[in-house]
Amino acid sequence: MSGPAETKALRQLVFEHVRASGRAARADVVRALGISAGSVTTLTSDLIAQGHLREVTDAPRDRLEIGRGRPPVALEVVGESQAVIGIKLSDERHTAVLADFAGTIRAHAAVPAETGRKSMTAMLGEIARLIERLLKEANLTLADIAAAGIGMPGMIDHHAGTVPWSPVLTRRNLALAEAFEERFGVPAYLDNDANMLTLAELWFGAGRSTADFLVVTIEGGVGMGAVIGGKLWRGTRGMGLELGHTKIQIDGALCRCGKRGCLEAYVADYALAREARTALGMSTRDPVDVHRLLADLFAEAKAGNAAARSIFDRAGRILSLGLSNIVQIFDPELLILSGERMQYDYLYADAVLAGMHEQVLDSGRSPADVQIHAWGDLVWARGATALALDKVTDRALGAAAAA
Amino acid sequence: MSGPAETKALRQLVFEHVRASGRAARADVVRALGISAGSVTTLTSDLIAQGHLREVTDAPRDRLEIGRGRPPVALEVVGESQAVIGIKLSDERHTAVLADFAGTIRAHAAVPAETGRKSMTAMLGEIARLIERLLKEANLTLADIAAAGIGMPGMIDHHAGTVPWSPVLTRRNLALAEAFEERFGVPAYLDNDANMLTLAELWFGAGRSTADFLVVTIEGGVGMGAVIGGKLWRGTRGMGLELGHTKIQIDGALCRCGKRGCLEAYVADYALAREARTALGMSTRDPVDVHRLLADLFAEAKAGNAAARSIFDRAGRILSLGLSNIVQIFDPELLILSGERMQYDYLYADAVLAGMHEQVLDSGRSPADVQIHAWGDLVWARGATALALDKVTDRALGAAAAA
Repeated sequence: MSGPAETKALRQLVFEHVRASGRAARADVVRALGISAGSVTTLTSDLIAQGHLREVTDAPRDRLEIGRGRPPVALEVVGESQAVIGIKLSDERHTAVLADFAGTIRAHAAVPAETGRKSMTAMLGEIARLIERLLKEANLTLADIAAAGIGMPGMIDHHAGTVPWSPVLTRRNLALAEAFEERFGVPAYLDNDANMLTLAELWFGAGRSTADFLVVTIEGGVGMGAVIGGKLWRGTRGMGLELGHTKIQIDGALCRCGKRGCLEAYVADYALAREARTALGMSTRDPVDVHRLLADLFAEAKAGNAAARSIFDRAGRILSLGLSNIVQIFDPELLILSGERMQYDYLYADAVLAGMHEQVLDSGRSPADVQIHAWGDLVWARGATALALDKVTDRALGAAAAA
Repeated sequence: MSGPAETKALRQLVFEHVRASGRAARADVVRALGISAGSVTTLTSDLIAQGHLREVTDAPRDRLEIGRGRPPVALEVVGESQAVIGIKLSDERHTAVLADFAGTIRAHAAVPAETGRKSMTAMLGEIARLIERLLKEANLTLADIAAAGIGMPGMIDHHAGTVPWSPVLTRRNLALAEAFEERFGVPAYLDNDANMLTLAELWFGAGRSTADFLVVTIEGGVGMGAVIGGKLWRGTRGMGLELGHTKIQIDGALCRCGKRGCLEAYVADYALAREARTALGMSTRDPVDVHRLLADLFAEAKAGNAAARSIFDRAGRILSLGLSNIVQIFDPELLILSGERMQYDYLYADAVLAGMHEQVLDSGRSPADVQIHAWGDLVWARGATALALDKVTDRALGAAAAA
């Protein structure tokens, strides 16, 4: 209710609206935020004086407009005033994106990751190679980077910047954000990778038209993110939405988390790979890459191998059950399925979605809308830039308000 | 951001703070809401002039204060200005509470319910007997009642006032709120019964010290409610939190909703009753009341009947799995277990809670606090008065703001 806090909130709202729009006239801001034209004039003048926004002359959109007085003036974010990095860490490759203050991607890079769990030092080494490649691409140095957002699989304590548990790290409770800052001299913000993809949807995708949606990701594991009331929701204490580790069977299959019966112990790569050798008649002594194994299994299933097909069928049926559970809990209007396993279309077959709807109590309304978004790693990494931009924006605009 | 809306919101905040506190001095309101003393003076004068609040002289709290100038003046809600009814409908008895505008219970009543599903007309007949008894008790008539809140099991569309599905009604998609209003001439607000108990916790219990918590109820079925950020959260589209119908087993036990593998198909009365005959060596021809059957089963289990005990053990293990799933999704600080099945302590045994914690991914923090609240039906019905009071407050204070 206090004056300065309200002004800061409004200034930030105006800035963020312009950034989300790409370009916006003052009249658009007035309409979108429902604040007075006078306030918008004052706030945008402040933002221009502080170097965060600038005026641009919109090219006439229609030939008929030419010569009809001065061209309309729009506002845009001064992109070059800040640069941030977004990183997606995974168990096979790491991906990074460099974005400016406007959220525009300026460069991107990827490096392969050593497979298997690793120490934090080894992980930081891989990150160093990734960042080196990215900065070379962007022709910038670490000193130019205002912040880094990092998304990775596992239980991530976003607020503390720590990793209580991740399938890509050997040890628990690692202070990765602090270690990153020490090594690179750049403030780092950690989050679960599914949250990063959800943030990408919020900023650049579904969030532009809806304020509430769920995202389920299927990759090495099963992840989940939620947007409630236009904001990323991480659970009451910040580490919820562990859909992959909800149990769908008492004393069920062993999960890499060490428990039994987790959804991902039936749906993730490693779960399918366990049965693949049986279906393909392979010895446990045959060394094989998990992706190669799954590609072979998928080809066999397509060719009519009943054992191979039953592996995918079961994964699909169990996925539909897991999805029905979150629909039952969240009653979402929109559920987005994403992740690298898009290629195995069994997971997204009509039968899986029909099975999901079938298992949900009939409320007499239209069922949840399910969309399948085939985003690649770059979009996840872009979500991580959104996390960094959010913090940089708070810092830049919060400091200005306090001054 | 508009002036009138903000004034209305503040006036309502002040009113609701006084109501929640029972009695509050103006200085308490200033401290609690962080608004200026001048604003509080203006807003409370309005509320007094409109007949919603009144000044009372607080009795001195301490003998030493006697004679130290005039006694302190506090504010309280003018309770007698409004009366509302809260109703809990269930499959064995219905309970009602009459509360005044201050939220104080003025009367209560209960009537037995015909067992089994019934038509809406039959249900309205039972409600009529309940209300008649309640009004007689309170020495009031229907004309004195400003609104009714109704909590019942099933999928309830609170916003539409309809019942898409309930285990106590024969038909689907009934417009119960409208039928209630037509019959009794009182505006009615419907909600799921677990939401009502959660609202009771929010207004009169846990909500006084925490802004985020979950409630799980075990009665005829398994229900759930959530408070997020100090507000009752019903799911994105208003009919979420159907924990009882999340699946914990593919092709599992048959639920009364018609699906298989639902949590409540293993934990609710009817689920236990199905196996009770086997454990007790009873023929399917023996007619028996479900409560009597469960009481006998529980006595047998206590006396060492291994078959009887295994029924409770399995229910407990499956409950712990269902609870672990919502802890994994919501990451709650506080989880409240409630409901009539408190008497069967197997459901709340240390082993069940230990099993729940064991199945949740270790985040390195303290586990969710689990509290067991043995509320009876009156508290559920009181939650329904909170729903009605909320609407009456909006109406009374919203109208004043618009004037």
